[in-house]
Amino acid sequence: MTKRVDDFDSLIAGIEARQHRALGRAATVLEDRLEGHRRLVRAIYPRTGGARVVGVTGPPGVGKSTLVERLVRSLRSDGQSVAVLAVDPSSPFTGGAFLGDRVRMQGFSADPDVFIRSMATRGAVGGVARATRDIIDLLDGAGFDWVLVETVGVGQDETDIVRTVDLVLLVTVPGLGDEIQAIKAGVMEIADIFVVNKADRDGAERTVRDLKTAISLVEGEVPSTPVLQTVAIKNEGIEELLGYAARLHDELAESGGLGKRRFQHLRLRVESLLKERILDLTRQTLDVEAHLRSAFEEREDPYSVSDRLLAEVVGVDIHKGGDL
Amino acid sequence: MTKRVDDFDSLIAGIEARQHRALGRAATVLEDRLEGHRRLVRAIYPRTGGARVVGVTGPPGVGKSTLVERLVRSLRSDGQSVAVLAVDPSSPFTGGAFLGDRVRMQGFSADPDVFIRSMATRGAVGGVARATRDIIDLLDGAGFDWVLVETVGVGQDETDIVRTVDLVLLVTVPGLGDEIQAIKAGVMEIADIFVVNKADRDGAERTVRDLKTAISLVEGEVPSTPVLQTVAIKNEGIEELLGYAARLHDELAESGGLGKRRFQHLRLRVESLLKERILDLTRQTLDVEAHLRSAFEEREDPYSVSDRLLAEVVGVDIHKGGDL
Repeated sequence: MTKRVDDFDSLIAGIEARQHRALGRAATVLEDRLEGHRRLVRAIYPRTGGARVVGVTGPPGVGKSTLVERLVRSLRSDGQSVAVLAVDPSSPFTGGAFLGDRVRMQGFSADPDVFIRSMATRGAVGGVARATRDIIDLLDGAGFDWVLVETVGVGQDETDIVRTVDLVLLVTVPGLGDEIQAIKAGVMEIADIFVVNKADRDGAERTVRDLKTAISLVEGEVPSTPVLQTVAIKNEGIEELLGYAARLHDELAESGGLGKRRFQHLRLRVESLLKERILDLTRQTLDVEAHLRSAFEEREDPYSVSDRLLAEVVGVDIHKGGDL
Repeated sequence: MTKRVDDFDSLIAGIEARQHRALGRAATVLEDRLEGHRRLVRAIYPRTGGARVVGVTGPPGVGKSTLVERLVRSLRSDGQSVAVLAVDPSSPFTGGAFLGDRVRMQGFSADPDVFIRSMATRGAVGGVARATRDIIDLLDGAGFDWVLVETVGVGQDETDIVRTVDLVLLVTVPGLGDEIQAIKAGVMEIADIFVVNKADRDGAERTVRDLKTAISLVEGEVPSTPVLQTVAIKNEGIEELLGYAARLHDELAESGGLGKRRFQHLRLRVESLLKERILDLTRQTLDVEAHLRSAFEEREDPYSVSDRLLAEVVGVDIHKGGDL
């Protein structure tokens, strides 16, 4: 037990010093909900709030990873520390892409002020969004100036993630098919900055114009969400993008908008944890399997079954006041 | 009140007669959780279980909608009734694609034994997966021989959907980029039949071979999951695909495998409803807003907040026996 306390203290000390080994170990504890997970969260959480947490999202193939790599380089040349969390199954960070990309990313491995972590996009205990948020807290709490979170902008898990970062960059490219564009519909509303990457390709101006039209349909005649152009592979537009993101973050912090966002993030996370906990509690309290078996045999509908389970766990009649 | 009962009875009668208007109205009640929603579910649920519920999933652009249209035509020429539920944002059913596709789909509008419903891919009260499952029950309970559910195979919501159908067809095409292929990783394990559509394109044989290799890595030397080829636009391979799906469904029904799957589906649905209900109950019981405000100000971590809320609702100390 004493040993364990020592371990925990040294882990926290390692996190505070931004030691990569300690960060990696802590991230694994959070991702897999290993023993000490809750204690770690409690220790880290009060230290959070200092980082600029920026989501970089968009469909596969738009060059998010290259863009993130260039952002990291630019931040480093400006003396700022940065952590990257890749939740993108096609990212070189998570091993989904070409070896060349992965090797290039490893160029940062000797730099103590860059920490890169890839997330398994499934299998994390309690869900990917839960684990990702906890690891963002870890990196924020460890004192990185920036935390960049790379995700494919599709699906509930990923939408949940981008809904809990400070700023969202939505990346696209000229000439993407309608089919691909459609999948980003769910995050379009929460984008703070649109980025047209590979902007040296044919059709870039058209894509920018189309995006601006779409934005003004939502925001009116004086839209505030910008559409920036980058050619990440040639390092074009990176400084401008970073400058814009930094200014926007500062403005949000000053106006109180950032506080409002982070309050919403807390709400979403609490709700999501509450859902998870009720399942745990039901499994601990009741013989769920037996309930399900009898329901299945008697063809009881899922709503009636779940109401019955919850009533037994909570000890109240939740049918009262429900809908017809 | 008497009026309402009459309305309800006539709605149920309309559903039993597979009247399109009644089905459409009932689907809206289920999707938007309108008054009478629970009563409708209770009335429908015992009638379910007769349809073959088949998910057609895969990344955008592989031609799922055309494939579904051809499956519908083939089933109709065989005298079987079929309902289509499109949860794909890029589907012509949901208005995401070209006008030409949409018009072609309307070719079925005069046929009483074909019913087509598109789902909003967000905004459904209680979640898209919940609403989709309820509408599948409606269509199954109404007595359609087949219910085809078209989804893009990405994201939690859609994975939840394909996890609660009888059979899953995973559609791909030759020459899709690695990035796109990666997004289907989440549903690859639950595919019952792989379909290489647009199989007259270059690289079809290669794609089939690659898929077979991937399958045998999972299933061993004698893999059972087939890889079928179609050219939906030319109506090639459709009969074979349908025949295979029908045989597989029959075999599963005979072996008891179908019952096992459907029991798992009930479990998933009950768990998901339980999660939703605890949120409702917490909001009804506590001043969640005030709890969140004070937690936010005191920088209390989300786990501690959710535990506290749940403890107050459930009336037990759920910290006991929890992790460290």
